[in-house]
Amino acid sequence: MSEKFSVGQLLAGLPPPAADEHFECLHAAGGARIERIVSHGQSSPPGFWYAQDGDEGVAVVAGEASLEFADGRSLTMRAGDWVVLPAGSRHRVARTASPTVWLAVHLPRAEDDARPPRPQLPGGLQSPS
Amino acid sequence: MSEKFSVGQLLAGLPPPAADEHFECLHAAGGARIERIVSHGQSSPPGFWYAQDGDEGVAVVAGEASLEFADGRSLTMRAGDWVVLPAGSRHRVARTASPTVWLAVHLPRAEDDARPPRPQLPGGLQSPS
Repeated sequence: MSEKFSVGQLLAGLPPPAADEHFECLHAAGGARIERIVSHGQSSPPGFWYAQDGDEGVAVVAGEASLEFADGRSLTMRAGDWVVLPAGSRHRVARTASPTVWLAVHLPRAEDDARPPRPQLPGGLQSPS
Repeated sequence: MSEKFSVGQLLAGLPPPAADEHFECLHAAGGARIERIVSHGQSSPPGFWYAQDGDEGVAVVAGEASLEFADGRSLTMRAGDWVVLPAGSRHRVARTASPTVWLAVHLPRAEDDARPPRPQLPGGLQSPS
């Protein structure tokens, strides 16, 4: 029997513009997940902040996008740009070109992680302590 | 205090050609690791096979490379192409353009992974069982 290799092309088979971003899991193992995200102009709702449980690494493969962070900083990303969003860090997508292709890696939360419990987040902007 | 976001550009700051490929860890957490690899024409030694302990996802960001697998298949990868190499699968890099930039994600070995123990690999070609 042959071993199974999954292959693909990040810029092929892009879904057409739709109301929501398109998420496709490329692989998951050991609590980690690799996904392709395709955006067509979507942005996070005003005042909404993502804050994922584990660290997340994101690279823009094509297109352009702007992220905003709860401390007031912003980041414009183009092809080849990457960012690591620490677990619990508050961020939102302010703008995306159509299409924007992302490669996202969701890392497992480290078992020996000494971070304090993450407080519940209100919907609005909140400065990190 | 601000939350810390690591940022970078995969195609910037490429190391010059050298004898060895250049590995840069972009982030590691929870047993997973994201790294940028820059190749300048390197290839695996003849008869040498990689077989990593956990699943590995690899995408070519720029350049071109050819992989070979122990079952005789080969794969030419260009920008945007990705492959998932299952834990223990035997593969080698047959060829890389100069430069070739890779984004590699090493995933943790799943705790509930039921794969049998991986046999020690001889240096030469070996067909998968």
